[in-house]
Amino acid sequence: MIRSYLLTPGPTPVPDVILSELGKPLIHHRTPQYRQIFREVSEGLKSVFQTRNDVLTLTSSGTGAMEAAVVAVANSQDEVIVIRGGKFGERWGEIAQVYGMKVIAIDVPWGEGVSPEQVQLALKQHPKTAAVFATLCETSTGVTHDIKAIAALTRQSQALLVVDAISGLGAEELRQDEWGVDVVVSGSQKGLMLPPGLSFVSVGERVWKRMEQTKTPRFYFDLLAYKKSLADDDVPYTPAIPLVIALRQALRLIQEEGMEKILQRHQKLAAATRAGAKGLGLELFSKTPCNVLTAVKIPQGVNGEKIVSYLRDEKGVTIAGGQAEMKGKIWRIAHLGAIAPLDILVAFSALELAFKKFGYPVKLGSGVAAAEEVFSC
Amino acid sequence: MIRSYLLTPGPTPVPDVILSELGKPLIHHRTPQYRQIFREVSEGLKSVFQTRNDVLTLTSSGTGAMEAAVVAVANSQDEVIVIRGGKFGERWGEIAQVYGMKVIAIDVPWGEGVSPEQVQLALKQHPKTAAVFATLCETSTGVTHDIKAIAALTRQSQALLVVDAISGLGAEELRQDEWGVDVVVSGSQKGLMLPPGLSFVSVGERVWKRMEQTKTPRFYFDLLAYKKSLADDDVPYTPAIPLVIALRQALRLIQEEGMEKILQRHQKLAAATRAGAKGLGLELFSKTPCNVLTAVKIPQGVNGEKIVSYLRDEKGVTIAGGQAEMKGKIWRIAHLGAIAPLDILVAFSALELAFKKFGYPVKLGSGVAAAEEVFSC
Repeated sequence: MIRSYLLTPGPTPVPDVILSELGKPLIHHRTPQYRQIFREVSEGLKSVFQTRNDVLTLTSSGTGAMEAAVVAVANSQDEVIVIRGGKFGERWGEIAQVYGMKVIAIDVPWGEGVSPEQVQLALKQHPKTAAVFATLCETSTGVTHDIKAIAALTRQSQALLVVDAISGLGAEELRQDEWGVDVVVSGSQKGLMLPPGLSFVSVGERVWKRMEQTKTPRFYFDLLAYKKSLADDDVPYTPAIPLVIALRQALRLIQEEGMEKILQRHQKLAAATRAGAKGLGLELFSKTPCNVLTAVKIPQGVNGEKIVSYLRDEKGVTIAGGQAEMKGKIWRIAHLGAIAPLDILVAFSALELAFKKFGYPVKLGSGVAAAEEVFSC
Repeated sequence: MIRSYLLTPGPTPVPDVILSELGKPLIHHRTPQYRQIFREVSEGLKSVFQTRNDVLTLTSSGTGAMEAAVVAVANSQDEVIVIRGGKFGERWGEIAQVYGMKVIAIDVPWGEGVSPEQVQLALKQHPKTAAVFATLCETSTGVTHDIKAIAALTRQSQALLVVDAISGLGAEELRQDEWGVDVVVSGSQKGLMLPPGLSFVSVGERVWKRMEQTKTPRFYFDLLAYKKSLADDDVPYTPAIPLVIALRQALRLIQEEGMEKILQRHQKLAAATRAGAKGLGLELFSKTPCNVLTAVKIPQGVNGEKIVSYLRDEKGVTIAGGQAEMKGKIWRIAHLGAIAPLDILVAFSALELAFKKFGYPVKLGSGVAAAEEVFSC
């Protein structure tokens, strides 16, 4: 009889009204009935991406959308700048390398955001840079990078700015058109409150022009094919039909709450989570924390993995541990998508109980109280 | 108040017991709970593929799995043989060309199966052929190719045999290990009775060996990454969780009915559909018809598209028209996945009513009667 709390940065909880769409009988995708839904969805995505661009829907994980962006914007042997400092920043570089691009890495320590001056310097040193690959929210560290400042640099150069907003979209401010971001990619299982299975690419005009010159091999991830099909409210290959239909419902929920209020909610959730962590005596890991998740250091002497298992298996509360080099060193508590203040308070209650159970020092209620303070403002 | 009949070769109808899995709250994929499900699914797929190979699960349409196979088995500049004669056979060639492979096309007329002698000749003329790409059931024409005979040729050569069984799996006999097929790809929205969104690649030993030499660029579709993750009951990128969980249910249904009986059921459905079509005075399009769908020629003077719309919008019966060069020339009635005899009889009833309504010559009951004859045997 335990209730389930999914406080992970993807998948995120799917509201019942969206879940119920997934269980409906299938309709065929090459019918007027489906095309109408896909048209509504493709239009609705624009307001979430804050863009007038076409937002293309792919059937893949977010990584597929990243690959689609890489092969669109650069050729083999082209120089590309990659902002690293986390698992997902590194992924940009791994994909670019597979396609023979020359990766100019800007390495920032895990837990820190990039300074725009570093990007400026790299652009100056490499004036032929084809693209800059950045991350709105680095899910592995809980860091947000200053995309607005980076875009101000790239929009004045020939370098296209490609942003991984897979976890960030809908939680972190990102004004694609206003800031001048060329490509934004995202996924369904994050702020869009859907299960995983769809990814999205919002493609700016400079990119379509660039694609006349990029010959990087691509088939399933050829954005030109998706753009062509979009004119018929279609995609080139059979889409994940139930997810697209559920997305319509998700977009209606988003429209109802309003993008501005959604961003404010995430700010508040993040602030409360940071306060709660400090109240509990935990140290924050990220120096420029995002609104998607909060990374906290696992205290010396505490078995982090045991706590994660206990919370999940005994209390129904799923949080994430660290990835790659941060494995065993941090916990990541996400507050992304369909999350309300009480979910965060539950997380701290469960953490406090876990600390007590395993004999780690804790003042019961201290995390909850500190988070409540923020929510009460 | 109309009931819905999905007689298309993907998506196919999803049984209620599978649909209900899709509407359940999400669990995280990097948990023991999910890994156990994925282990059961990965094991269960082997019996459907009739193989001892690892069957890898990708989050993509079937085309993604095709691309994963192409980049695995050949390098740019390698010669590859592609059996065409339909939209999906052609797709193998399109993907191979994107990656710079030299495509040796065996063109068979649409509606006909390839003769194994043609493949034998091509292999003789091109002894360095890296791979042969074939199609178990060519969904655009309703043709089945003789994969067993082709495998008997390729298994004696260095050429790997890669088979698109996207629509064919679970409807058409395909004994991967016994026949010696190196790669089989499939998708979820076909014989597996799921919505679209997952694809599968069953990879034989000769392929893993080949991959030591193939340097074709690949990231999301790098089968080596999926193989590595499979050891941890995991995939490298966030999977379409609800589909994988629903797949467990689908595999249980398949196990209950038994693969042999499922293949027999599809044989019978196909035979009855062919008989019904002839009873209605329609001509079959395919000379080597498959058990997945039946392609029939649209009679002279009949507006095929109008009939498709009427059946779908007024009667709830969705069948497919022709694709590419067969557009407006054929109808495709699928009998794939969760289809029972009555579904086929409904289709002919609806077709007869449609013919009558639009004033085309028809003897009411003639198609139904002929199909019933087969089902009564």
